[in-house]
Amino acid sequence: MAILLKGQAVVDALNEKLTAEIKKLKAKDIHPTIGIIRVGERIDDVAYERGAMKRAEKIGILVKKYLFPEHATQGEILAAIEQINQDCLVHGVLIFRPLPEHLDDAAIRRALLPSKDVDGVTDGSMAGVYSGTDLGFPPCTPMACMEILDYYGIDVTGKKAVVIGRSLVVGKPAALMLMKKNATVTICHTKTVDMVSICKNADILMVATGKAKSIGAEYCHSEQIVIDVGINLDEDGKLCGDVDFDAVEPFVKAITPVPGGVGTVTTSLLMKHVVEAAKKAAQKDKKDEN
Amino acid sequence: MAILLKGQAVVDALNEKLTAEIKKLKAKDIHPTIGIIRVGERIDDVAYERGAMKRAEKIGILVKKYLFPEHATQGEILAAIEQINQDCLVHGVLIFRPLPEHLDDAAIRRALLPSKDVDGVTDGSMAGVYSGTDLGFPPCTPMACMEILDYYGIDVTGKKAVVIGRSLVVGKPAALMLMKKNATVTICHTKTVDMVSICKNADILMVATGKAKSIGAEYCHSEQIVIDVGINLDEDGKLCGDVDFDAVEPFVKAITPVPGGVGTVTTSLLMKHVVEAAKKAAQKDKKDEN
Repeated sequence: MAILLKGQAVVDALNEKLTAEIKKLKAKDIHPTIGIIRVGERIDDVAYERGAMKRAEKIGILVKKYLFPEHATQGEILAAIEQINQDCLVHGVLIFRPLPEHLDDAAIRRALLPSKDVDGVTDGSMAGVYSGTDLGFPPCTPMACMEILDYYGIDVTGKKAVVIGRSLVVGKPAALMLMKKNATVTICHTKTVDMVSICKNADILMVATGKAKSIGAEYCHSEQIVIDVGINLDEDGKLCGDVDFDAVEPFVKAITPVPGGVGTVTTSLLMKHVVEAAKKAAQKDKKDEN
Repeated sequence: MAILLKGQAVVDALNEKLTAEIKKLKAKDIHPTIGIIRVGERIDDVAYERGAMKRAEKIGILVKKYLFPEHATQGEILAAIEQINQDCLVHGVLIFRPLPEHLDDAAIRRALLPSKDVDGVTDGSMAGVYSGTDLGFPPCTPMACMEILDYYGIDVTGKKAVVIGRSLVVGKPAALMLMKKNATVTICHTKTVDMVSICKNADILMVATGKAKSIGAEYCHSEQIVIDVGINLDEDGKLCGDVDFDAVEPFVKAITPVPGGVGTVTTSLLMKHVVEAAKKAAQKDKKDEN
């Protein structure tokens, strides 16, 4: 029986910390605020937005919505971003993506100030993750993985970490974050040969294959920590991860469940970034005053 | 006896290709030009500059020097960069670094347009390497390693590549470049445990430890390709790599010598980037005209 690395405990700890920080900020008349840009009415986006708003409200973060119809023009979106960039009362921004196809995703991302990019989508944020500096913000999903490891006291220094997946949203940033924390990182992907033996050799296995139940017990060993980034629907329409939980769980030391694991924590990281953005903006204002 | 992956053959092939491309550009009245910003008179910088100028001259790239005394102010350097950014006759820029301590390295790098950043030092270039897009340019040393592999027909797809070192100049970009070419990459560093067995398992071993002769035969096997990024002076004052060449060479399949390996190729990559920058600028001008 593996230890279950449940997300809720991490969220509770984060909420407690953030609530206290937000209280302090509010005492200085700083009200951490997230702007949400949504184009169209995709069910996933609306559901995520609802969850994020609830999470924000609970800890005292304000939400400002910028909603556009599916057929909104590039100019309209860019104007909203420009307005947000100028608005010192909006500290961080979440843009739902993928955007409708007629919009230029790169140009829209490029328009946003990295200092407000709490979801880590701008080039500045990417350069920050890559160079290990605090230009912008890292993407929330891999940060949620790191937060879980941290909360459960799993020190990755000198450990062999294997990340499966090389996407910009999870695999690459997760690999760099683990390396920054002094793990020895291997990145596997679709062209990797003999992935089973590489994974079997990992102390920490972070799975972002994007395929339901794609990693079974043959990839694992009894001392392994497994972090499952996937969120999929299985053949019965039930939520499941990229790891075959039922097969793997009995054989590893610890594992994140799906649902209730990484996904649960992701939104809290978004909120953490908003608070950080508000704090940084306040520091900058103070500096500019002096 | 290992196959020696000599740099000169790679340089010759690159020079031939670049000379032809530059000829074509000159026929369209485009004269690829590199700007060199040097603050102070550090011996290494002056020597590298001399080599770069020779290399540039040989293939027909123009060099424009921006030389400053050691005590130059931040404002003077920024003004030069601003001038270069505006100057459509200078296509790429090399800034000798580290800069003197009184200068703000980050601000100076940030001032340069990524489109002219042929040495890969701007945040834009870093985001490009990280995201696998052509924002800016990748740093020249890891590109030289990739060029050597390519020239000698070494396909890295599905191969196990181990990079030793996690610097922004070599280790990180090399890891991402190898991954982009579909290698399964592991990054080792000072906190790595059991590095010998990890390296011994590599098909391709890229060494950037920054320490003379730090990698011996125990890290290697007979089918291994070893790329040595180091340039150091040994106890007798002779140039040597990060790999103990005499110890390793008899036991591996192929290895880059030092001197005469990666270092030989690096400047050619700088020139290649200048030609690419000139071509891109010309394409952009054409696009702007239409």
